[in-house]
Amino acid sequence: MQNQNILTPKFPELLHGGDYNPEQWLDMPEILEKDLEMMKKANVNCVTLGVFSWVSLEPADGVYTFAWLDSVMDNLYKNGIHVVLATPTGGKPTWMAEKYPEILRVAADRTRNGQGGRHNHCYTSPVYRRKTKEINTRLAERYANHPAVILWHISNEIQGECHCPLCQEAFRDWLKEKYKTLDALNHAWWTRFWGHAFTEWSQIQPPSANGFDVVHGLNVDWKRFCTAQALDFCKAEIAAVKAVNPEIPCTINMMEFWGGTNYFKFKDAIDVVSWDCYPKWESTDNVDNAIFAAYYHDMMRSMKKKPFLLMENTPSTANWCPVSKQKHPGLHKLASMQAVAHGSNSVQYFQWRQSRGGAEKFHSAVVPHRGDSENRIFRDVTEVGAALKKIQSVYNSNVEAKVCLIYDIENSHAISDTKGPRNEGMGYTEVFKKHYKAFWEQGISCDIVDMDGSLEGYDLVVAPMLYMYRGGIANKLEAFVAGGGTLVTTYFSGVVDETDLCFLGDTPGQGISDVVGIYVEEIDALYDEEENSAVLSENRLGLRGSYKIHRLCEVIHTKTAKALAAYGSDSYKGCPCLTENKYQDGRAFYIAGDAEYAFLKDFYTGLCKESGVARNLDTDLPYGVTVQKRIGAEGEFYFIQNFLEREAELALPFALKDLEQGSLLTGKITLKPYDVKICIKP
Amino acid sequence: MQNQNILTPKFPELLHGGDYNPEQWLDMPEILEKDLEMMKKANVNCVTLGVFSWVSLEPADGVYTFAWLDSVMDNLYKNGIHVVLATPTGGKPTWMAEKYPEILRVAADRTRNGQGGRHNHCYTSPVYRRKTKEINTRLAERYANHPAVILWHISNEIQGECHCPLCQEAFRDWLKEKYKTLDALNHAWWTRFWGHAFTEWSQIQPPSANGFDVVHGLNVDWKRFCTAQALDFCKAEIAAVKAVNPEIPCTINMMEFWGGTNYFKFKDAIDVVSWDCYPKWESTDNVDNAIFAAYYHDMMRSMKKKPFLLMENTPSTANWCPVSKQKHPGLHKLASMQAVAHGSNSVQYFQWRQSRGGAEKFHSAVVPHRGDSENRIFRDVTEVGAALKKIQSVYNSNVEAKVCLIYDIENSHAISDTKGPRNEGMGYTEVFKKHYKAFWEQGISCDIVDMDGSLEGYDLVVAPMLYMYRGGIANKLEAFVAGGGTLVTTYFSGVVDETDLCFLGDTPGQGISDVVGIYVEEIDALYDEEENSAVLSENRLGLRGSYKIHRLCEVIHTKTAKALAAYGSDSYKGCPCLTENKYQDGRAFYIAGDAEYAFLKDFYTGLCKESGVARNLDTDLPYGVTVQKRIGAEGEFYFIQNFLEREAELALPFALKDLEQGSLLTGKITLKPYDVKICIKP
Amino acid sequence: MQNQNILTPKFPELLHGGDYNPEQWLDMPEILEKDLEMMKKANVNCVTLGVFSWVSLEPADGVYTFAWLDSVMDNLYKNGIHVVLATPTGGKPTWMAEKYPEILRVAADRTRNGQGGRHNHCYTSPVYRRKTKEINTRLAERYANHPAVILWHISNEIQGECHCPLCQEAFRDWLKEKYKTLDALNHAWWTRFWGHAFTEWSQIQPPSANGFDVVHGLNVDWKRFCTAQALDFCKAEIAAVKAVNPEIPCTINMMEFWGGTNYFKFKDAIDVVSWDCYPKWESTDNVDNAIFAAYYHDMMRSMKKKPFLLMENTPSTANWCPVSKQKHPGLHKLASMQAVAHGSNSVQYFQWRQSRGGAEKFHSAVVPHRGDSENRIFRDVTEVGAALKKIQSVYNSNVEAKVCLIYDIENSHAISDTKGPRNEGMGYTEVFKKHYKAFWEQGISCDIVDMDGSLEGYDLVVAPMLYMYRGGIANKLEAFVAGGGTLVTTYFSGVVDETDLCFLGDTPGQGISDVVGIYVEEIDALYDEEENSAVLSENRLGLRGSYKIHRLCEVIHTKTAKALAAYGSDSYKGCPCLTENKYQDGRAFYIAGDAEYAFLKDFYTGLCKESGVARNLDTDLPYGVTVQKRIGAEGEFYFIQNFLEREAELALPFALKDLEQGSLLTGKITLKPYDVKICIKP
Repeated sequence: MQNQNILTPKFPELLHGGDYNPEQWLDMPEILEKDLEMMKKANVNCVTLGVFSWVSLEPADGVYTFAWLDSVMDNLYKNGIHVVLATPTGGKPTWMAEKYPEILRVAADRTRNGQGGRHNHCYTSPVYRRKTKEINTRLAERYANHPAVILWHISNEIQGECHCPLCQEAFRDWLKEKYKTLDALNHAWWTRFWGHAFTEWSQIQPPSANGFDVVHGLNVDWKRFCTAQALDFCKAEIAAVKAVNPEIPCTINMMEFWGGTNYFKFKDAIDVVSWDCYPKWESTDNVDNAIFAAYYHDMMRSMKKKPFLLMENTPSTANWCPVSKQKHPGLHKLASMQAVAHGSNSVQYFQWRQSRGGAEKFHSAVVPHRGDSENRIFRDVTEVGAALKKIQSVYNSNVEAKVCLIYDIENSHAISDTKGPRNEGMGYTEVFKKHYKAFWEQGISCDIVDMDGSLEGYDLVVAPMLYMYRGGIANKLEAFVAGGGTLVTTYFSGVVDETDLCFLGDTPGQGISDVVGIYVEEIDALYDEEENSAVLSENRLGLRGSYKIHRLCEVIHTKTAKALAAYGSDSYKGCPCLTENKYQDGRAFYIAGDAEYAFLKDFYTGLCKESGVARNLDTDLPYGVTVQKRIGAEGEFYFIQNFLEREAELALPFALKDLEQGSLLTGKITLKPYDVKICIKP
Repeated sequence: MQNQNILTPKFPELLHGGDYNPEQWLDMPEILEKDLEMMKKANVNCVTLGVFSWVSLEPADGVYTFAWLDSVMDNLYKNGIHVVLATPTGGKPTWMAEKYPEILRVAADRTRNGQGGRHNHCYTSPVYRRKTKEINTRLAERYANHPAVILWHISNEIQGECHCPLCQEAFRDWLKEKYKTLDALNHAWWTRFWGHAFTEWSQIQPPSANGFDVVHGLNVDWKRFCTAQALDFCKAEIAAVKAVNPEIPCTINMMEFWGGTNYFKFKDAIDVVSWDCYPKWESTDNVDNAIFAAYYHDMMRSMKKKPFLLMENTPSTANWCPVSKQKHPGLHKLASMQAVAHGSNSVQYFQWRQSRGGAEKFHSAVVPHRGDSENRIFRDVTEVGAALKKIQSVYNSNVEAKVCLIYDIENSHAISDTKGPRNEGMGYTEVFKKHYKAFWEQGISCDIVDMDGSLEGYDLVVAPMLYMYRGGIANKLEAFVAGGGTLVTTYFSGVVDETDLCFLGDTPGQGISDVVGIYVEEIDALYDEEENSAVLSENRLGLRGSYKIHRLCEVIHTKTAKALAAYGSDSYKGCPCLTENKYQDGRAFYIAGDAEYAFLKDFYTGLCKESGVARNLDTDLPYGVTVQKRIGAEGEFYFIQNFLEREAELALPFALKDLEQGSLLTGKITLKPYDVKICIKP
Repeated sequence: MQNQNILTPKFPELLHGGDYNPEQWLDMPEILEKDLEMMKKANVNCVTLGVFSWVSLEPADGVYTFAWLDSVMDNLYKNGIHVVLATPTGGKPTWMAEKYPEILRVAADRTRNGQGGRHNHCYTSPVYRRKTKEINTRLAERYANHPAVILWHISNEIQGECHCPLCQEAFRDWLKEKYKTLDALNHAWWTRFWGHAFTEWSQIQPPSANGFDVVHGLNVDWKRFCTAQALDFCKAEIAAVKAVNPEIPCTINMMEFWGGTNYFKFKDAIDVVSWDCYPKWESTDNVDNAIFAAYYHDMMRSMKKKPFLLMENTPSTANWCPVSKQKHPGLHKLASMQAVAHGSNSVQYFQWRQSRGGAEKFHSAVVPHRGDSENRIFRDVTEVGAALKKIQSVYNSNVEAKVCLIYDIENSHAISDTKGPRNEGMGYTEVFKKHYKAFWEQGISCDIVDMDGSLEGYDLVVAPMLYMYRGGIANKLEAFVAGGGTLVTTYFSGVVDETDLCFLGDTPGQGISDVVGIYVEEIDALYDEEENSAVLSENRLGLRGSYKIHRLCEVIHTKTAKALAAYGSDSYKGCPCLTENKYQDGRAFYIAGDAEYAFLKDFYTGLCKESGVARNLDTDLPYGVTVQKRIGAEGEFYFIQNFLEREAELALPFALKDLEQGSLLTGKITLKPYDVKICIKP
């Protein structure tokens, strides 16, 4: 790509559209015609084609039928609508599964799946790789130079694992490459425990509930292999389409960390990061949903430190929820613009037209079964499209964050497999979210990286529950603090290395004990209904009184750190539970127990003030309101968002121009329920 | 049969007895002798033999041992006790499973069962069909002309499904017959979704959790096939016994809709409908249990619009309940007579003598392990037998209903598989029961049919949640209303066709939108703890104020209908939620949300009054009391039942003669706890 | 053994130590050296070696590597530390599973496990038996005469079952031996029910969820076979090591009744009983945990009526708990000495040094990952070791009990499989514990035997819920009462024989109806939230007023018994629910419903007073405090234990000498939170 910041160089605009499956409607041409007319009405400028089209493009082995797609694509382009073109590997044809059973996935219990569902193919199968290369090559040959096509959408929500003999063998090869010797592997996995040591590579099997199920090193390596194999498959897909036209960028639509897939590993293989965003809106307080979406948006942007694409979201309900709630008035636009606020260059939907049948026929779509535009959902979508047109200057602006949080999916896998100190809810993701929330509520932009990421350029790094140190994180944390940064880390950090082997000596391990100036003696676990407390000493952060602590309490000893708070009860009453340590040019805080959110809110508020980490708007935000900021060639953009269904007031510290209304906002402003204001600093 | 109304022409009396398994006691002849004596004491006039006798009748392949059964049957007959003779296919011999493994069922995960349990045979297996024909033929040859035998009991609680290769092939044949072309099938099942389209018949597999699991059309067709295959097997069983003596009628003992079996499909293959009735008496308020039993009784009667048989119920506890509660004093007689009130010509038990071992050894029986008659259960049973003798004039009288409710098990399957709008509890059966309750509490007789049934002759049809329109139901509903009938239908109706494909255009589909005069824009789902309300406008039904709505709320638009109530809150506040539409000579009500029972009670009370649907007794009934009515050659029979364990009072609008006491009841009468009065209008 | 009371004749001392796995640390010799030094510091005198060492001792088929173990053992002995040597069969090498797949267990669904976990070998496999014999023989040849070795620890927590073809065949052989004829088996299992009767031995299969799952006789016999097969394997293990040196005693470490294993059957095959004790300390009120541990300790001692060994307990947390609570200060010593109080001659831990990896890396150990002794756990362990040295005179003293409770695991299996009267919680173990608690709270020593045990020498026998009469228990109960003993038994007793076949005639069966002087008519079940009551009549036990009854209520009739209490409500109000019957020289009480603990407490307090069953200390004990007593050559030892985390007071009836402090205690004494005082009567 010439300009790394231009996500879609052939069509450098904020995208609005979504998944479009015309192959379901080929026998009703009047529907296809009406689609074009309604897309224009809805301000759609781009659709995703081909996600589940394999059987429609290749109805029998080696027999291809592109005519219908030619026609659809030409008609779209004639009507000014661009195309994100998917490779169809997310849903293989049934004839292929029948002809080549080896392409079907094998479950952990070693039974081979039948055909059906999505993501039910083996990433290792040579047959599936060959068939994938063939279809991708033909698709590229036919469409990679079509003027409508602006982006490749590689497969669909890549995820999952396969335990077939081919994958097992590939896993053993991957392990040989990683460990070289069985001695190294046996040590790394601590296999003498329960007498499991391997004496031949062939003895190694993927984890299984009725076989090896608690060899932690095996478990985490297996998860790594599954990501590696999916990535390898993805790279082969990309190579096939790039071989034809290297100018069309590629993306995958990530889906949280579905199936445990570590999407961070894909970031360098793709040109553009995109994801599918499905909070359970209206299921609870929407502030909670907003924070969930916000941190994923931040994570997507942080992968490449560039804008990303929102590839899917729902116009109203998501049918797979336990209870499918409608989005209330205003919420659809707010949720759409939230993505843009955090760095998205698109608002895309699953899907354009509601499916008549199948598992997602009650997932909402822009066009409902009734087929008309005279409904709330269509109007909401149209409104978003209109708004995107008015804020085009936002395109490709970026976010500049001084705060970085670390969230690591390999760490998450390891924590969910610890066997103690709590087997019901260690709460890693929940705790991470609690830390993130303290910044979101202040309207402070954050990057989110995993342990492979860089910590350069930040003022503050927040690293909760980094149980497993991997990716050189200890070195990076040490260098960050030594170089003047402020680190906040917590209990249950630096306990094991990258194969889940406990550190000997002081922990947090790998020298971080010295950086934080404490070491851990024991960790106690609390039942959900139990609590302890953190009783504050005099401190510069303005914290006073006491806060509740739940779930986990470490008994720690200070070495060089200063205790800022101590436990209020239990047999370790009086032991420090919040410490601060000066280390070279920086300092490090250690939170020894799972402190309640109120603590984190006050702690980070004090810390940001004290250390000069600025809010996006220097004003106090009412509950439920956040302000996110993008900075681009044309200026600074402020996204003021109200995630509560009630009015909120806000005092602006300086005048802002409302991009949609064209008006100037000053002083105290009022936000309607679910309101979003997109402004530029004039 | 000469007289279609005589269920058991060789013994035209109200039956009293139950399952009798003498083959378990052959080594204790004194037990068999005592059985005869005690049966007479208990007023038993009929027992069911042979349900699990296959291994006792055919201990090795082709070796038959009928002597013991000859003797048992002769002795019974000599003592005035008639016999319902079962074919033994519900429990195949272990030797047969060992010799012919193909007869064992295969589960959805494609693993073949071991031997054991009931209903563990393949309906397709040629071997099992041959062995069944052989034993049935021999049984018939030996006993079909025995004077004791009055009825064939075909197999036992037929149900379930088999995924073996033979059944899979039969399923594909059934589909070919139904759809003729794969194009038709692919369209009906909407298989382009997720790219599953079939290109050869051989690619089709029954649903499986690890294969096709959300192809809704496949799922509903598979259920249909399973019923069809069981029915085909049942017909072959019947043919074998009828070939010997066509004069002996046949029944199957239905069991709710066990295993999803659609027993409605069996009604024309059998001569007599019978069922096994197991409410969880005493588990909660018995009113709830009574309503459960009542609507099933009504459904059984409605199948053939003729009296039916109660084939099994328990004298006291059912051992498979989470907690096996005893029936309190009076309840056994009340529950027994409830069946008769709704049209049963029998009260039969599972079982006569308590089993010494096996899964049901703690299921109560007429004769307990102790072996005596000096106990409460034996006395209760004896009392029922005595009462049946006194009400013999009830025999073959029938019920005449002007109200018809629709309950459809295929619709139930489809609703439980919708994937949205609620995946936790759509509540179809519960909602149906709520509608039924409003009539039961008024003492109004109802028929209950499925969508294949006829709506002719009714004044009022109630059709809640008819999600799937099938069996020509839309035509029948239209004709019913056009012809002057009153229809009540609800939200989530007319959404899909018979293969679960959504209707395009206005819904309820297939023209019912015009009949009800509204169309649906969206459906919103509520969490269990959420509620909306229906706020009533002025109306002729006497409804006032507001009622609660839960779970599901449709946003509808009136076309020709008049709104009678509107939602009280949420973003669709003010939208209509109860409408009335005049359509040709009739009218149709539409209830757009899941209204609380109080609403249904008041609505149907008003509607019945307004439209002249009469109560069986024109008097107000206290809570827990219902009155059911049978009409026969000898007059009108009233069954006044009190399902609460407290006294209740009732004002009779006219004098009734108590059939048991012989006394005349007039004016205000008092019902004892769990009382039942069986009266004739003199 | 010359002296049957000397558990470990080569080292007749109270043992202190635990599992030691040096093979995990062979590449860090400094760790092994530090272990010796720290063991001495912690007052450890004995460790268990080799539990999971098979792959380290035999890294390839027939290749042995004993050098590391030679060195470890020599060094231990040089440092005064003795060795309990394990046979390594609990964790087979991975190479063995790869080479001989037949040794892997097959699950109830007939799928063969992969390698992994513990206890994953077939007890029947000739290959596994051969490999076991080889390694055991070589271990014995090398170490059975080593001066350090004091005891064989056979395998590890033996348990579980295998459904492989070899085990199935062995099961059929076991059945042939037991029943001789299929007729006998068919009758015992009542297989005519549901028509399952077997006509060839080959038709019999172990129970399976998708095959025979409710043939109760099969289910209980299968459980018996699994224990028998494990025992047979264990005997072969013992034979191999005894063949080399018969002087070293053998034990197995029992683990509650893990996997349903009936450890009582092992008592005669081993020389010493030992067990692994893991209450969920601190999870709830510790009194509850204490009672759990107490009755298991008593059961272990009662097996051989000799002191036993506590083979494993945790120094602080158990990582497999839902929430791993630390032991609070004092609790570790209290829990350790509780074992000694009930008859243990050891306090052993799992494990010495915390594992770096594997499923139990967060199980606490004497030496933590940090590797130092400067921590609470190490100090707690050291304190226990010091205390054991001071109370050496306790060694081999025993407990003398006049009260015997019956708990039977086969009865437990049968009750959990009854299918009625409650399928959610019959509560056998819970009820047993409630009866036991009434004695523990009074400080009365109890023996606990199963139905195979002897009742000779007791004054009072307590037999709650003896549903299944087996092992000649009816004869023993009759003889006990006839001979002047006092029996307390309850509802749901004497219902079935040893193959789960219901008794005909009066129950409790086999004549016990006459001993208790009542017979049972019916049993009613209550939901958890329901209750009935027992209303007391005038009685000599001092019981007054009424008590609650839950879950199960029998309706009984007295024959010769006298009613002491009657039900307070329900349709059986007024029927007796507590009776007393004089029978020959003794008497028998019958409790017909599940009475609340308060009743049992008052009942047994009154009964013990009235019948002269003495408390260990004739003084009232505050809640949470118990007193246990051992009697030995050197005197009477009193263990006064406070299981609450608060002070408690106690009035001593006579002076006691505190063995740890050397001081004399008299009159009113104060116990600290979690205090234990170990005293001798001077």
